[in-house]
Amino acid sequence: MSLADFSSCEISDALIKLSVSHGGHIPDIRLVTHETRRICGPAYTVKFVLASDTGAPKLASHFVDTVTEGSVIIIDVPPEAKNAVWGGLMTAGALVRGAKGVIISGRCRDLAEHRAQDFPVFARSTSTIGQSPWTRPTAVNIPLTIAPQGPGADFFPAVTIQPGDLLVADEDGVVCVPRDLESQVVELATKGREVDERCMKDIQDGKGIQASFKLHRGK
Amino acid sequence: MSLADFSSCEISDALIKLSVSHGGHIPDIRLVTHETRRICGPAYTVKFVLASDTGAPKLASHFVDTVTEGSVIIIDVPPEAKNAVWGGLMTAGALVRGAKGVIISGRCRDLAEHRAQDFPVFARSTSTIGQSPWTRPTAVNIPLTIAPQGPGADFFPAVTIQPGDLLVADEDGVVCVPRDLESQVVELATKGREVDERCMKDIQDGKGIQASFKLHRGK
Amino acid sequence: MSLADFSSCEISDALIKLSVSHGGHIPDIRLVTHETRRICGPAYTVKFVLASDTGAPKLASHFVDTVTEGSVIIIDVPPEAKNAVWGGLMTAGALVRGAKGVIISGRCRDLAEHRAQDFPVFARSTSTIGQSPWTRPTAVNIPLTIAPQGPGADFFPAVTIQPGDLLVADEDGVVCVPRDLESQVVELATKGREVDERCMKDIQDGKGIQASFKLHRGK
Repeated sequence: MSLADFSSCEISDALIKLSVSHGGHIPDIRLVTHETRRICGPAYTVKFVLASDTGAPKLASHFVDTVTEGSVIIIDVPPEAKNAVWGGLMTAGALVRGAKGVIISGRCRDLAEHRAQDFPVFARSTSTIGQSPWTRPTAVNIPLTIAPQGPGADFFPAVTIQPGDLLVADEDGVVCVPRDLESQVVELATKGREVDERCMKDIQDGKGIQASFKLHRGK
Repeated sequence: MSLADFSSCEISDALIKLSVSHGGHIPDIRLVTHETRRICGPAYTVKFVLASDTGAPKLASHFVDTVTEGSVIIIDVPPEAKNAVWGGLMTAGALVRGAKGVIISGRCRDLAEHRAQDFPVFARSTSTIGQSPWTRPTAVNIPLTIAPQGPGADFFPAVTIQPGDLLVADEDGVVCVPRDLESQVVELATKGREVDERCMKDIQDGKGIQASFKLHRGK
Repeated sequence: MSLADFSSCEISDALIKLSVSHGGHIPDIRLVTHETRRICGPAYTVKFVLASDTGAPKLASHFVDTVTEGSVIIIDVPPEAKNAVWGGLMTAGALVRGAKGVIISGRCRDLAEHRAQDFPVFARSTSTIGQSPWTRPTAVNIPLTIAPQGPGADFFPAVTIQPGDLLVADEDGVVCVPRDLESQVVELATKGREVDERCMKDIQDGKGIQASFKLHRGK
């Protein structure tokens, strides 16, 4: 079994068992291009700033031209931005580079083009306008810290994504697994699935959730 | 005719005619598992608290093990919670108990598992993480008062759901009918549908909305 | 080529080239009735007020009875309203009048009825309750200024829609084109599409996004 065999929820359960209280979860980023799809791969990180932030570094290359094979692109955008930072041409470039999908703490556009290219996009929302003149990319392959947005945001911890951490995203949401926890997460998720399958069988047999949890989970 | 024959909108219209200004509507809880589906049944209420609220009572049983046959489960969760309070195993338990669906003022997870079991879930959003260590159930079969969330929340009244009140939920949203208003709501919704059908025919015949409303609704 | 041949994103790109910094975009109004659909037509504007605003003018006719042939209806609702301002009977009336769809900075209801009549509705959200007793229409064919809602709303400009301006809406979002910019937008969008097609071909051929943009866009 590998990380790609597990759902975002199974992986969060494993991380919580490892005392990662946020379970790796970045809330409120949803799959906008497909009804259902799961992606899993090492994080290629991209940081955007507001265009008004003229002091931030500029990139020498387009941020998609340096995407690494097999990666999942994750983009952090200032929360006030109403523009998209990802469109159809970027999906084409990402596919050429062998990326598996993109996760945006922000907005995307050109939904039909991503679907036509069968490239999964996870985002907070959509927009009709592109990057310019509102935002621009400033760095790739740096740590990102993505906090919840909206009411109650302070209640739940931000998740820090290091380049190369493992990202898993599906219709339930987005999860980040620190690279050094990968093998423990796979081990715990494997056990967790076995326990859940035993619980499911007993629950469907009418043995009750509390009794089934006590028998198979020990509590 | 019975309550189950009417849409959430027809029922809200009837409640507003009975001077229930909120029309029984709890805003911004949407059907997350199906494209379209309607459920109707008496409320089995569940209250969650933040795990930090150590003084709140604990339940003797798992809250799903005491669900009543034919009920619609409704769960009130503190608005700041980013974790799910409902997953695939709970759907299995609820189905064994004969529940018709669940309405969550909060988040759910395991979307694919609910679909596979054909169990409708209404929620504000999704999450990858479960209840622990963030929230826990504290009471069942008690009144719930669920207020709108987000900007403008104070403008619209909270809805109080008594255990056994009738819940109707579909793709337009969630409505609560006080048990003692059920027969009046059915009567008014039956008349309302007849009037709307006459209006629809005249409007489609080009007689104008204002004229059709005046003729059939009297205003 | 005419405006109807272009996506909301292509049109926003053209407007931004014309120094309209918001690209005509009204954020966070989404297509709620169809998976994908595009509408394009001159704006028939409608302004709602809270029912508590007793001083605002009253309309002599129902606002749908005066819709103009071929128009796209756009409705501005006070952001705190939790009620719908559009339902199935209004869709019937709008179809008789030859409207192409409705865009609501607010909520709609009766999703199934709009789908059954194949009438596209764009809205911020849904509700089960109708206009009364919460809101009412106060004016048609007047300019509307619709601002973003929620956190970060001040960051992005409001869009002003004059009656007769061209509205384009699809699954990516809603765009307003001032009537006097229509021909320039069509011209720039036509060129933009040609350039994007050349970029797409080169990007898919592995020539890189930066190199392709430099070659075809000149930067």
